[in-house]
Amino acid sequence: MLLSAEDFLKDFHHTATIGATADGGVDRQAGTAKDGEIRAWFRDWGTERGYPVRVDSIGNMFMLADWTPGVPFVLIGSHLDSQPLAGRFDGAYGVVAAMHVLQEIDSEVRASGHKPPFNLGVVNWFNEEGARFAPSIMGSSVFVGLLDEQNTLTVSDPSGTKVGEALEDIGFLGTDPRPEVAAYAEVHIEQGRILEREGIPLGTVDRSWYTQKLDIEVLGEQSHTGATSMADRRDALVAASKIVVMVNEVTGDFEEDALLSSVGQMHIEPNSPIVVPRRVHLIADLRSDSEEIIQKARATLLAKFDALAADHRVDVNARDFDVRPHRHFPESGLELVEKLMADKGLATRRIRTRAGHDAVALSTKVPSILMFVPSVDGVSHCEREFTEDKDLVTGLDALAEVARALVNGASEQ
Amino acid sequence: MLLSAEDFLKDFHHTATIGATADGGVDRQAGTAKDGEIRAWFRDWGTERGYPVRVDSIGNMFMLADWTPGVPFVLIGSHLDSQPLAGRFDGAYGVVAAMHVLQEIDSEVRASGHKPPFNLGVVNWFNEEGARFAPSIMGSSVFVGLLDEQNTLTVSDPSGTKVGEALEDIGFLGTDPRPEVAAYAEVHIEQGRILEREGIPLGTVDRSWYTQKLDIEVLGEQSHTGATSMADRRDALVAASKIVVMVNEVTGDFEEDALLSSVGQMHIEPNSPIVVPRRVHLIADLRSDSEEIIQKARATLLAKFDALAADHRVDVNARDFDVRPHRHFPESGLELVEKLMADKGLATRRIRTRAGHDAVALSTKVPSILMFVPSVDGVSHCEREFTEDKDLVTGLDALAEVARALVNGASEQ
Repeated sequence: MLLSAEDFLKDFHHTATIGATADGGVDRQAGTAKDGEIRAWFRDWGTERGYPVRVDSIGNMFMLADWTPGVPFVLIGSHLDSQPLAGRFDGAYGVVAAMHVLQEIDSEVRASGHKPPFNLGVVNWFNEEGARFAPSIMGSSVFVGLLDEQNTLTVSDPSGTKVGEALEDIGFLGTDPRPEVAAYAEVHIEQGRILEREGIPLGTVDRSWYTQKLDIEVLGEQSHTGATSMADRRDALVAASKIVVMVNEVTGDFEEDALLSSVGQMHIEPNSPIVVPRRVHLIADLRSDSEEIIQKARATLLAKFDALAADHRVDVNARDFDVRPHRHFPESGLELVEKLMADKGLATRRIRTRAGHDAVALSTKVPSILMFVPSVDGVSHCEREFTEDKDLVTGLDALAEVARALVNGASEQ
Repeated sequence: MLLSAEDFLKDFHHTATIGATADGGVDRQAGTAKDGEIRAWFRDWGTERGYPVRVDSIGNMFMLADWTPGVPFVLIGSHLDSQPLAGRFDGAYGVVAAMHVLQEIDSEVRASGHKPPFNLGVVNWFNEEGARFAPSIMGSSVFVGLLDEQNTLTVSDPSGTKVGEALEDIGFLGTDPRPEVAAYAEVHIEQGRILEREGIPLGTVDRSWYTQKLDIEVLGEQSHTGATSMADRRDALVAASKIVVMVNEVTGDFEEDALLSSVGQMHIEPNSPIVVPRRVHLIADLRSDSEEIIQKARATLLAKFDALAADHRVDVNARDFDVRPHRHFPESGLELVEKLMADKGLATRRIRTRAGHDAVALSTKVPSILMFVPSVDGVSHCEREFTEDKDLVTGLDALAEVARALVNGASEQ
């Protein structure tokens, strides 16, 4: 049986109806009812086809083809959670592609009567996005031991709900054992413009950028916007706004796009129209292919924060948070993808990922492969995120080739 | 019977236990459970002493001494709601003082057997603070017809709860008729430093500042903080942060404190650490004793917003909101306070209010008097807001003198 692109596309486009937004995106933040809904769909899809689905104690889901009990698994997959008002491709594409690759390879194995050296499983990692619960890439980081599970279960969202409670609420705080993993492969949209610009259908990720966040608290004093003289104020929001601008402008110290920076999240207290804010909490995100650039930008910012604090009579407390050094994907995996695609006459290029991915976490533990397909206009984390069906199918085929090679022991050579 | 300062202080300090915060303040935002709790206390206090309490259809509460049925009321009072993490004096002081003045004058009337030409009532205005539901000074503005009641009942808080629903939830969406009003008097903390600096125990407010807000929406495009090149971004938060700084710095175009400006409230969407924000909504607050200064500052800001929008490829939509022209308190009321206090040997000074007050709304309909007592360090809308007991008692006595004169027809002369 050949891999059916039509069935894959039908299932993939179905996932976009779960948590669909008005403008063609999705909203399925981790641990919400909509995340629960797509998880139930994933579980039912697997059990209906005879693949048992395990759920571990951080909400990761594993759909398994256990041809030879006791043998480790090649895992393929991504994540089904999303940002708020997100695109429908990020994560869901890689999971649905993996589901169809599992079904295809399982058919081949059953038809041939020959069991490969490794089992195969599809994974839906919990909370890759980190929108509701920080940090991102949560489930896969716990899986490989980069994050402590007990601490992670007690992380709270802004309304005080803990990770463990949210998983329990949607019925996905599992107790199943984690499968033993031999190798990992993931296909994802690029979320950048390189493949589109160069007309190359598939990218193989050789390493991730160095990234780090700064968790910044600005403490001023609450006062009346009407009654308080300007000189008497200790306005946390004015100071925090200058920090947002500093974080943006520090990229100008380096070559274009050598450093990416942003403030995506900010909480203001008490956030009342007629009260001068007393506290602002914000997270700055710094990313570069060069650790040296990150360190320079960080030092520049911290020095500026000190001067700002003195000028505005506020306290600025900044701490390093979610520091992610470069992660290198193994050369053998890159060469495997290149060879398999060359055999099919398909152009590939090596590419770096600026964004974090579950595959980056997995690469710290097992041989891992991350492949990208083109993103139209490079946009992501927004409703107009788009990838054409033909590019989705190219990635699906590539994942099938890679998974087939891996269950047959390619990562051992 | 003499006005008992001790009983008044006991009741006043009791109100600070309802919604008490860890650092000595209170949190009783309008329509919340804690607002319901203090309202129940207010109602019980009145009914236990034989004063019926009416609740109108916007949640204003009236505790009435109806000596001569059918005769209009002199109303005295303020508001029991608070900002988040607020001080315990703002509003509650004026209500509790009015309750004790009512009790005192009622005793005098009953003892003398002589009914004055007007009845007397204490009012607790709904939602003076406007922290949860904008705009502020809500209940008194509906009462005098500055705000439409039906529209106001459908105003929502950030979680989507409407004013009418919140009042219903706490059991204070009333149906009682509003009392007819002949005059209004209120005592309040200054929330500024003038009385403290000059060592004067009582201020009489001659007019309010000209104030206006700008409701500002910044629309950019949501994208991935990691993957999106700096040049491709349309970051709503960077642009909004520059607006916060512009609103702050425009005060520098004028003499010190001729213009007060602030941004107290800002909502960011989607507010996720790894998403470039697509929309920011903020409210700028401009106040001056000079309308011309407000108009100049407003024009400067709107021109800067246009340039900013072009520079950052975002839309900036700013609209005028909650514009409050100067309100003048009548000369006769000012002279009444000055004469009564001079008779007691107490110094007073005329003062302007930068902050809005229920008395400012009432002054558009009936002869109104607003008096201030000193605020330590001028701080307000924060937990360290403070006024000494002796100053509270001076204001209590002044309110008693004024109310006694008003029920005897002083505002008619």
